Amino acid sequence: MFVFDRPVRFADVDAARIVFFARFLEYCHDALEALFAPLEGGYAAMINRRDLGVPSVRVEVDYRAPLRYGDTARVETRVERVGRTSIVFVHTLRRLADSVECAVVRQVVVTTTLSTLRPVPVPDDLRALLEG
Amino acid sequence: MFVFDRPVRFADVDAARIVFFARFLEYCHDALEALFAPLEGGYAAMINRRDLGVPSVRVEVDYRAPLRYGDTARVETRVERVGRTSIVFVHTLRRLADSVECAVVRQVVVTTTLSTLRPVPVPDDLRALLEG
Amino acid sequence: MFVFDRPVRFADVDAARIVFFARFLEYCHDALEALFAPLEGGYAAMINRRDLGVPSVRVEVDYRAPLRYGDTARVETRVERVGRTSIVFVHTLRRLADSVECAVVRQVVVTTTLSTLRPVPVPDDLRALLEG
Amino acid sequence: MFVFDRPVRFADVDAARIVFFARFLEYCHDALEALFAPLEGGYAAMINRRDLGVPSVRVEVDYRAPLRYGDTARVETRVERVGRTSIVFVHTLRRLADSVECAVVRQVVVTTTLSTLRPVPVPDDLRALLEG
Repeated sequence: MFVFDRPVRFADVDAARIVFFARFLEYCHDALEALFAPLEGGYAAMINRRDLGVPSVRVEVDYRAPLRYGDTARVETRVERVGRTSIVFVHTLRRLADSVECAVVRQVVVTTTLSTLRPVPVPDDLRALLEG
Repeated sequence: MFVFDRPVRFADVDAARIVFFARFLEYCHDALEALFAPLEGGYAAMINRRDLGVPSVRVEVDYRAPLRYGDTARVETRVERVGRTSIVFVHTLRRLADSVECAVVRQVVVTTTLSTLRPVPVPDDLRALLEG
Repeated sequence: MFVFDRPVRFADVDAARIVFFARFLEYCHDALEALFAPLEGGYAAMINRRDLGVPSVRVEVDYRAPLRYGDTARVETRVERVGRTSIVFVHTLRRLADSVECAVVRQVVVTTTLSTLRPVPVPDDLRALLEG
Repeated sequence: MFVFDRPVRFADVDAARIVFFARFLEYCHDALEALFAPLEGGYAAMINRRDLGVPSVRVEVDYRAPLRYGDTARVETRVERVGRTSIVFVHTLRRLADSVECAVVRQVVVTTTLSTLRPVPVPDDLRALLEG
């Protein structure tokens, strides 16, 4: 399991004073960038130099408790499955202070050539990282 | 069915040059604000004056095609169910120019007193609007 | 003077419950996109097809009153000057309901070839639009 | 001088593939949150518990070079002046890899009671932090 801490930022909340529901996906994305960091050049080189991306094809979110400004979200990411061209991640977002579960996000991504948006087999280095 | 057009904004895309996956939820939220506009004072009065919100408890997104800068997303929102304290929306996002389906979002919200974050029955005016 | 109305969106506010200071620049950008709409293909074609952009080189903002969720910002844009490769815009943001001045933004942009980020003379159609 | 490193995030760029101009202000805000962290409870407690904020009244930005995805912005923040109810910060944003100056931001904020939005003298602990 990969753990990533993400403080709620000042402008992450909405007019209801809780973290806007779309931002939970941003937090998961930030966790993936951190998880991919050991790849050479990290996530950015994957996008910029290898023309490789991991767009989501399916996302399911169960929201269980709100996050507020002042909280830190702890994102616990588990790799559920590495397929031929797809990867399934399950992210559990907890409020760091008391470990309350705020959301569970199941995210299916497809390894994709960005210039064509065609699926491509999960590259060896990424597979090794995720299965390691 | 309620229809809402949302041009992709300049900063909605990400480094892969397609609309960032979390923003699809923003587009659905914008559609809901427009759908709720006939309520007295609209969505804003609901939040600011009635202490009432509709936080999501469950969201499922199937991403089928990318949106790019220059596209307009047409969000077609259908009310699948109005329960006692919950509402189920299904949003189909199409690229306006050619009607290609870009995503389907199923969103379950709970009518909630914001100051306590406790569920509250769907108010009559909202129920009438959604069932109308 | 060009006038553009931009409702404050649900997630535009910050934890202090007022529109986040950086978003005032987003509102000005949205006004520019609307102002450029009469160009063939609009702002998007300028970026996507003509490889032309108008990055800012200088921005000054005087914040005078807050905007809140439920407000609409009226952006009044005046073209102060069209130079050889630069354009100066002055945006006055008012709260629509009572015309209170919320901010004045002076923005200097440079017409730029995006692939090289080199300045390029203001194209004729844009100059005609802005001087018209 | 206070130094804060902020990697460019995946969705920070715009359709011109450079960091969106409004986000430079977000980066400065993030630097301020980090700078204020030694206050008891940090920036969040200031907002949530002390009803104290530091809204900007004036911002000037000179944009000198673009930031791209893959870059990290180093924000160097200098306190230019601590007045009775106002503070002047000057942020220099550099690209971490080569120290190229990307922007200089001069930001004037006013210490403010958030519930009334009235100016209030700079509190002693904040003054001590900024003058220390």
